[in-house]
Amino acid sequence: MTHFHERPVFPRGFRCASRNCGLKPHGRDLTLFASAVDAAAAALFTRNRFPGAPVQLGRETIRAGVLRGIVVNSRVSNVATGEEGLARARRMAAAAAAELGVDAGRVLVSSTGVIGVPLPIEKIERGIAGMAAELQDDPLVGAEGMMTTDTHPKALSVEAGPATITVVAKGSGMIEPNMATMLCYIFTDAALPRATLDHVLRSAVRDSLGMLSVDSDTSTSDTCVLMANGLAGAVDETAFLETLSAGCIRMTEILARDGEGATHLLRVHVQGALNTDEARVIAKTIVNSPLIKTMVFGADPNVGRILMAIGKCFNCTIRPSSTDAWINGHQVVGGGRRLEFEDAAVRAALGHEVVDLQVSLGVGDGNATAYGCDLTQGYVDENAAYYSS
Amino acid sequence: MTHFHERPVFPRGFRCASRNCGLKPHGRDLTLFASAVDAAAAALFTRNRFPGAPVQLGRETIRAGVLRGIVVNSRVSNVATGEEGLARARRMAAAAAAELGVDAGRVLVSSTGVIGVPLPIEKIERGIAGMAAELQDDPLVGAEGMMTTDTHPKALSVEAGPATITVVAKGSGMIEPNMATMLCYIFTDAALPRATLDHVLRSAVRDSLGMLSVDSDTSTSDTCVLMANGLAGAVDETAFLETLSAGCIRMTEILARDGEGATHLLRVHVQGALNTDEARVIAKTIVNSPLIKTMVFGADPNVGRILMAIGKCFNCTIRPSSTDAWINGHQVVGGGRRLEFEDAAVRAALGHEVVDLQVSLGVGDGNATAYGCDLTQGYVDENAAYYSS
Repeated sequence: MTHFHERPVFPRGFRCASRNCGLKPHGRDLTLFASAVDAAAAALFTRNRFPGAPVQLGRETIRAGVLRGIVVNSRVSNVATGEEGLARARRMAAAAAAELGVDAGRVLVSSTGVIGVPLPIEKIERGIAGMAAELQDDPLVGAEGMMTTDTHPKALSVEAGPATITVVAKGSGMIEPNMATMLCYIFTDAALPRATLDHVLRSAVRDSLGMLSVDSDTSTSDTCVLMANGLAGAVDETAFLETLSAGCIRMTEILARDGEGATHLLRVHVQGALNTDEARVIAKTIVNSPLIKTMVFGADPNVGRILMAIGKCFNCTIRPSSTDAWINGHQVVGGGRRLEFEDAAVRAALGHEVVDLQVSLGVGDGNATAYGCDLTQGYVDENAAYYSS
Repeated sequence: MTHFHERPVFPRGFRCASRNCGLKPHGRDLTLFASAVDAAAAALFTRNRFPGAPVQLGRETIRAGVLRGIVVNSRVSNVATGEEGLARARRMAAAAAAELGVDAGRVLVSSTGVIGVPLPIEKIERGIAGMAAELQDDPLVGAEGMMTTDTHPKALSVEAGPATITVVAKGSGMIEPNMATMLCYIFTDAALPRATLDHVLRSAVRDSLGMLSVDSDTSTSDTCVLMANGLAGAVDETAFLETLSAGCIRMTEILARDGEGATHLLRVHVQGALNTDEARVIAKTIVNSPLIKTMVFGADPNVGRILMAIGKCFNCTIRPSSTDAWINGHQVVGGGRRLEFEDAAVRAALGHEVVDLQVSLGVGDGNATAYGCDLTQGYVDENAAYYSS
């Protein structure tokens, strides 16, 4: 039984600060997370072939497996900026490390925002100065400094035996993480052996952030970091992983629901696929289909689109005669055929803020759930002028 | 040098008729194409795993390699309708064949529209009766009866030596043909050996309709048919294929430009990929990216998105340092970095009705072009209430 805190809190030893350093005209645009002591750390990064400078640097930093802090700016992603971009990412790490009084190699850097614009490093360096004195206990303050088109800051906390797990993240477009959303930081005071940290993070992310897609576009900045500072002592690893997974799934739902322009959280549950891999492919394909997404937006029970979306998984095993589907519990497809159903009831079901689309393939034992959202005019509006806004 | 007719005409021996048979409240919803004599025929169908009843029947019909006619209805696609749907598709073929005085096996059936709704076969049978007497010479009349969300009927003609090639098609959403758009019929009076017909069709479609994507969703009804009745005699096969390819590319552009809600034709040219297959994957990935599509809609030069879209082709060979990109001739990316460019000029270039996005990868000799359109509020509006409208 996962116990979520009503309001997010930090595990022992973690704090954060955020500021406006002049990247955005209004609002916080710079965040510093810090652990009072060295924390064992693992990280996953985007698979995009044009990773940003912070991701390139982060891959180097995480090799040591120890972090004291994370510094993040929004508005400018420092991607496609060449050697100069990498140099500026290093300066950002150094500035934050100096502020915390630790080695530059102990601070991980992230940047999120427009691609291809030079990072205003002087503003960031000036912004970092003095932040150590402002460190405080509310994770939402940190979440606020890293928002781009997110409509609200995102953080949650969950109890893991004697320890706490806190997940702080930002979404909201250019999101089809194959491993993580754009930025997700997980803090815990559990003591976990360095050797298992990477495995624990991968396992938790696989079925949560790894199954999230807002728009099928994979960011060049995706970063997911786990810091475990050990201040709460040892934990049962199996129970910890279970709790961490539950926390990551909850955060995945929060990110999906706040996808750009979204009005619905869409969860696609696939069961009975040939194997887990095929279940994942089919669930992702459905959750990414523009015609499924607009159907959910319009609460329009054009349920044949579910079969269309399953059917375009050319390389998966599909048996039309054993394919069934439900929308929020209403069966709409049976044996590969659209069933007669009460139009008004399904329309009402599609009107719920959370739409669960369940597909049963009757082929094997593979199950998976994908997380996404509807496609609305709001998505188009936001992205037709993102650069200029 | 391809010579397009100013207005589409039929090759010798082909005619068509269309009517309203009561499927749509207004407008033509039923089309009959006929050849005065037996025509050698080849066809390509959707790869979707839930093919509609007309596609299932069509695969059977085309085996004989001879057609006299094609009958098409819009509004209802006869997909996900089980055995009864197949029986109704057969009745539709039989009715058209009887009207033309030929065997049922000589008529190919297509249906396009909503998935999962029973085909109103009585209305269609009543509608077909008497159509033979209305056959006439304007291909656009036939194109009109098969429109769904198309904003205009689509047909073109091109000279192929002594023969004519006429392409009649409909688009406009649920389109990522791996082989063809939803419905595309190609008529020619050239005499072509039955043995080469299939090869000729596949070759022409591969780089045209096969590279079209409006929304990445693959229809359950995609059908592309080539009928060659031989009335113009033999042609040079190489020249014929070249002309046919040019005609198919032109039709692909027309379909892309009329994608649901589209305001731009987007052409993505990839050169220097490792090989043709990778060039095709990368071009399709870019043309399908929601963030590229909204960038084009908004004429917003957020050109980092081009790198993002290339970079999410995880399995292709990408070398950031040799990656360049141009928008309508303006270079915006060089060596994997966003270049300084005149914002207003690129913004103006993106404002053109036709946007050519050129990517040079510097890796190998693979080239490909993909055809698509922008993503607009219009797409969302049309598809949020397609079923109900």
